Amino acid sequence: MIGGDAAGMSAASQARRLRGAGELEIVAFERGHFTSYSACGIPYWVGGDVEERDRLIARTPEEHRARGIDLRLRTEVTEIDVAAGRVRARDVDSGAESWTSYDKLVIATGARPVRPDLPGVDAPGVHGVQTLDDGQALLDSLARARGRRAVVVGAGYIGVEMAEALIRRGYEVTVVNRGAEPMSTLDADMGRLVREAMEGLGVTMVGEAEVTKVLTGQDGRVRAVATEDTEYPADVVVLGIGVRPETTLARAAGLPLGAHGGLLTDRAMRVRGHENIWAGGDCVEVLDLVSGQQRHIALGTHANKHGQVIGTNVGGGYATFPGVVGTAVSKVCDLEIARTGLREKDARRVGLQFEAVTIESTSRAGYYPGASPMTVKMLAERRTGRLLGVQIVGREGAAKRVDIAAVALTAGLTVEQMTALDLGYAPPFSPVWDPVLVAARKAAAKIREPWDQAAG
Amino acid sequence: MIGGDAAGMSAASQARRLRGAGELEIVAFERGHFTSYSACGIPYWVGGDVEERDRLIARTPEEHRARGIDLRLRTEVTEIDVAAGRVRARDVDSGAESWTSYDKLVIATGARPVRPDLPGVDAPGVHGVQTLDDGQALLDSLARARGRRAVVVGAGYIGVEMAEALIRRGYEVTVVNRGAEPMSTLDADMGRLVREAMEGLGVTMVGEAEVTKVLTGQDGRVRAVATEDTEYPADVVVLGIGVRPETTLARAAGLPLGAHGGLLTDRAMRVRGHENIWAGGDCVEVLDLVSGQQRHIALGTHANKHGQVIGTNVGGGYATFPGVVGTAVSKVCDLEIARTGLREKDARRVGLQFEAVTIESTSRAGYYPGASPMTVKMLAERRTGRLLGVQIVGREGAAKRVDIAAVALTAGLTVEQMTALDLGYAPPFSPVWDPVLVAARKAAAKIREPWDQAAG
Repeated sequence: MIGGDAAGMSAASQARRLRGAGELEIVAFERGHFTSYSACGIPYWVGGDVEERDRLIARTPEEHRARGIDLRLRTEVTEIDVAAGRVRARDVDSGAESWTSYDKLVIATGARPVRPDLPGVDAPGVHGVQTLDDGQALLDSLARARGRRAVVVGAGYIGVEMAEALIRRGYEVTVVNRGAEPMSTLDADMGRLVREAMEGLGVTMVGEAEVTKVLTGQDGRVRAVATEDTEYPADVVVLGIGVRPETTLARAAGLPLGAHGGLLTDRAMRVRGHENIWAGGDCVEVLDLVSGQQRHIALGTHANKHGQVIGTNVGGGYATFPGVVGTAVSKVCDLEIARTGLREKDARRVGLQFEAVTIESTSRAGYYPGASPMTVKMLAERRTGRLLGVQIVGREGAAKRVDIAAVALTAGLTVEQMTALDLGYAPPFSPVWDPVLVAARKAAAKIREPWDQAAG
Repeated sequence: MIGGDAAGMSAASQARRLRGAGELEIVAFERGHFTSYSACGIPYWVGGDVEERDRLIARTPEEHRARGIDLRLRTEVTEIDVAAGRVRARDVDSGAESWTSYDKLVIATGARPVRPDLPGVDAPGVHGVQTLDDGQALLDSLARARGRRAVVVGAGYIGVEMAEALIRRGYEVTVVNRGAEPMSTLDADMGRLVREAMEGLGVTMVGEAEVTKVLTGQDGRVRAVATEDTEYPADVVVLGIGVRPETTLARAAGLPLGAHGGLLTDRAMRVRGHENIWAGGDCVEVLDLVSGQQRHIALGTHANKHGQVIGTNVGGGYATFPGVVGTAVSKVCDLEIARTGLREKDARRVGLQFEAVTIESTSRAGYYPGASPMTVKMLAERRTGRLLGVQIVGREGAAKRVDIAAVALTAGLTVEQMTALDLGYAPPFSPVWDPVLVAARKAAAKIREPWDQAAG
């Protein structure tokens, strides 16, 4: 196993469940200090919602070792020799290197944050938030920072969550974003709702701005972030620009990579063309079941599923990972944000024509206390009416409603079929027409329009 | 239109949307004072969460009339003359009767609460909670009650919701229930969790008890409820035993009724064998897509869908109601209760063999503040692994999670397929394995067992 986080250690644990230590020797290499932790939880640790780092660790190295996994921390694999079936690993502290042979190899090298090639980007006070070590470094940096001004570069999930975390730490936060609206995983009309909420929280949102350099003070520490137009003073900078698959090793070994730089696997998570090499987690590309194309999505829930599938197969069982529909949920204070399937531009890119509708509804029956507004956008394919995607922005109860659409996408339902879905209804939980049903009705009517006109 | 609540008035409104007043004359008969109200909201009105009765009214008689619907309140249809295409209606106040002819008839007569044939059941202080008039009568009765002891007969949704409402009004509440556990729409092992929550709320839960009579005082007003074993003092009694389809008129007219006493319709909600008669809402039986059999389910969300379908067809369009999967959600204080599909006994009754699993998980990532326990029970068919049903009891976020299963049931997914569902994950909303996925994994493993053993 190369990589000791979600995918790698899930695979190791599942394989061990199926095959005892007498049947299968498992060696896991991890270059960091930790195993099986929730990177998704880092913003909540930085923001103070989660009090201790160790709460984010699902299973410690000692627990893995107690289950018969030969876990080698602070050990970085530097080469995969596919022909000979061996990997070369280096002890990070001593620098000593050695080869280890394998019958079966699992690559779970994860992703690395995009670090833009900017002057000053490596200055003290500039932080990524990909690993627990990163999170700790950021917290240490906050403790040392002289002022209370933070700039977050990028307004995706991580950027938005980190902006909130820093607000909670009492910082004055500016988010500098290339796109016009935050959360480019949403269409811009839905992203606007997120921007408004962020601004309501006191965050300064700067859109359509490209960071050109990071400026440092006389002590070498970050002092500002510059764009073409202006400078934003900063005592600390968080990079939330996104991640890329960490496939340096795989590339050097000649393993097949996709257009997004991730490893390509089959349904059993086996690296294409390689009988005895599996890969999973943030370093692979996954099949998007809606577009039919490969994507790269770094998300713990996928990594865990991959690990489960790989461990089962490595252990001699049978399991597959059929693909994703692109579901993601997030929150900014009490604003919940969700998306699944294709955005308008995704649909266009893969040649799908569609109708898009947006509706306003409420989280509960209008008369029930605490009912809050919810906006649902829905895309459906022209002619077939097949659901293509849903985006939801609202308060309580908005995010997980997207699961309705995630299952519908998986099953290939049309929006007309969705109008009849038997969704849970009671006044504290939904209006009598659930917001998703309201959107489906409007989308179905739009799909029918040409026929209705011909008939009418 | 016979009946002016959800199904009838939705049908009238939708037909009017498609056909103007010059094309289609719409007459609607309603024997009560109100139209288009939320009966599901009555417990929250009685409990004080909803301050005014009129908040429960989605559309008033005046609003309907303004849209060109000839609405006749306090007018009860007393006979349907199918052969002649006419209905006889009586003015409730004056007693005057007259015949009205129709080209198309919509029957939306709703349901009536079961009133057990017990001595004393009609005494003052004994209340059903089916209509707004019932709700008002109960509130008036509470205002007049001398003491603060309430007995609720029946522990289904209405019984449980009314128990909470009366607790909120400061009553000492006893729920007397025929079954061992409340919420017989759940399996008893899940119902137990509801009982424990009710008891935690201070409600006295009496199970396996049959009410034999209602005892009255010298003033004729209720003073206690008697079972075979004992008496429960009561200043007010609420009947929450359930409802039956109100099909007296339909039966007299020779229209086809099912085993549950509800009208039988086709997919277009047309009464079987009758080209120009439609029926919908609480007076019809619906197809259960999981069992393949007809059921009676009184629920506003179905009634609204029926009305929409009927109105479209009456207005010359085309729409169908394919059936239900039996989703229902409810709450008792902060306990959320949900179910969809078949319980164990439903599955047995229709000849399905199954595996049942129950898992404990949490609503959010374990390290995220506010994570609360959630119990998910899942049934899957033997051999095929097809999902048959899900029951969920938990706190925040439990109830609407059942929608995942509702869509999966509609699409006929297997539990093995469900293990790969791309559900929304972020620490504030779900553990990395959503509780529904955890249940699906356990169910899938149980379904596979015979094969795994044969292979192993």
